[in-house]
Amino acid sequence: MSTFAPLHLSLPATSANLGPGFDTLGLAMALHLTIDAVAAPEFSIQATGRNADLCARLDRNLVFSTYRNILQQSNQPIQPIHLILHNEIPLGMGCGSSASALLAGVLLANHFGNLGWSGDQILTEACRREGHPDNVAACWRGGMTISSMSGSVVETATCGMDLNWNLMLALPSASLATAKARALLPPTYTRADAVTNIQNAALLVAAFAQNRPELLHTAMADRLHQPYRKQACPLLPRLLPLVDHPGVYGVALSGAGPSILLITDAAADTESLVNAIRHAASDPQVEILQTTIAHGVTVNGAVAG
Amino acid sequence: MSTFAPLHLSLPATSANLGPGFDTLGLAMALHLTIDAVAAPEFSIQATGRNADLCARLDRNLVFSTYRNILQQSNQPIQPIHLILHNEIPLGMGCGSSASALLAGVLLANHFGNLGWSGDQILTEACRREGHPDNVAACWRGGMTISSMSGSVVETATCGMDLNWNLMLALPSASLATAKARALLPPTYTRADAVTNIQNAALLVAAFAQNRPELLHTAMADRLHQPYRKQACPLLPRLLPLVDHPGVYGVALSGAGPSILLITDAAADTESLVNAIRHAASDPQVEILQTTIAHGVTVNGAVAG
Repeated sequence: MSTFAPLHLSLPATSANLGPGFDTLGLAMALHLTIDAVAAPEFSIQATGRNADLCARLDRNLVFSTYRNILQQSNQPIQPIHLILHNEIPLGMGCGSSASALLAGVLLANHFGNLGWSGDQILTEACRREGHPDNVAACWRGGMTISSMSGSVVETATCGMDLNWNLMLALPSASLATAKARALLPPTYTRADAVTNIQNAALLVAAFAQNRPELLHTAMADRLHQPYRKQACPLLPRLLPLVDHPGVYGVALSGAGPSILLITDAAADTESLVNAIRHAASDPQVEILQTTIAHGVTVNGAVAG
Repeated sequence: MSTFAPLHLSLPATSANLGPGFDTLGLAMALHLTIDAVAAPEFSIQATGRNADLCARLDRNLVFSTYRNILQQSNQPIQPIHLILHNEIPLGMGCGSSASALLAGVLLANHFGNLGWSGDQILTEACRREGHPDNVAACWRGGMTISSMSGSVVETATCGMDLNWNLMLALPSASLATAKARALLPPTYTRADAVTNIQNAALLVAAFAQNRPELLHTAMADRLHQPYRKQACPLLPRLLPLVDHPGVYGVALSGAGPSILLITDAAADTESLVNAIRHAASDPQVEILQTTIAHGVTVNGAVAG
């Protein structure tokens, strides 16, 4: 039997884009995937929490496929592991579940394959596998994380970690594959649309860096992806007008959708906001989660990112 | 004779875009247009400093034409004024001279027309006249100012006011009209180009907000305007590689060009940087100005923006 030490991971959900920050901005949310891993005679998972049945699958499991793939490419033996997993991140909803699974796979491979990778290597490998850095970087670093990826170089900056803003997620009953949501986008944009998103994304960074929630009304407006994803995300056109509701700072599609992120005043009456969302959604199946801005990944209880 | 109190204005030069922040970001620089204005029997100007001959012209003078036009549209008598003007801002070089002249005209009209406009009204009027907000907002607010204009609503955020970074401007001998520089741009962009600029502009805001100069190397890279303006701005392709020179944090076209802005380490040897710029420019006519980040407009000695 192996003598590897066990590993404890906690990885936050993330909401990418935040409106104008397409493939750029991500916000870590206090809904977590937690994993206790030990070396074992064979691969196995004991899962609880949200979508536990999907999380417990051994085939087409993104944590295990990433883990195996990295050990293979690093020419390391593929040490079987047993995972005790608890999941709070909605799957297929644009809440960064695949980014957290990818990062978990990289961190497990780094540990049980004894790879000795730095934090930057871990982040870069996970971003490369995801294809865009926004969810992975926000999961890793926490707070509101900006990321820029050119070639294999990932640069990040984090702000807004300790803002006392509330987050509300509205989840429809049906999920949406990111690849399908990406196929809806046009190949080119007008200069005016590109400039609007640059202006709003820059303003959004300042809103988080300087605790200026009054900027979010303008700063979360987007022209590059949300207009094209409305057809696949019926909650989006219904909930965007809530940006004018008292207590709501800003509204955006969460990642590629279909869920919707609302950033709200922590002092606002939650019940009235929930009722406003339910009413606007016109969907009795809509689920509403309330959460806050989270720190990044922790490894054995210590912030890693 | 009028009994109007005299007015003292000081308006900084500005470098817009900063690479990826096209029509979005502007940086106030400690090169000033200062104006002492008094009510007088007729319009007159006594100008000193840079381009004093152009600044002293009474016809096609942007300060006076803006002043007259605003008083006319406000149905106020057009009070003639005498200006004692000292100018340090290069004209036609992409250093925000027209933004400072526009703002001066608005402020003079507000004072001598007794319009009682708020700061936001003054900013909005000047942005509307300029057509894009980046230079005007940075001149008004100072520091590194982000601006977003949709319809007649201008939102701004300012950071980096007190950063101890040096600024160097390389000016070629020939000037360039902004309209000509804008005509070089394509009408549409690929998604990849738009995303790169959103990523870098967001990172650039964080670099200024968090004093992280090491991010500027990546964060000042642009794909939306600089590649198309190289033909009209020969210094640009020659000086961009200086981003890898010791002591240089970032390099960008200043506004629509033709001058080049370098953000440099305040501890770096200035003479060696000047020599490196001269060598790369291959132009004995190039003029190099050294300056720092500035506060915004002052009216009678008080910061106004």
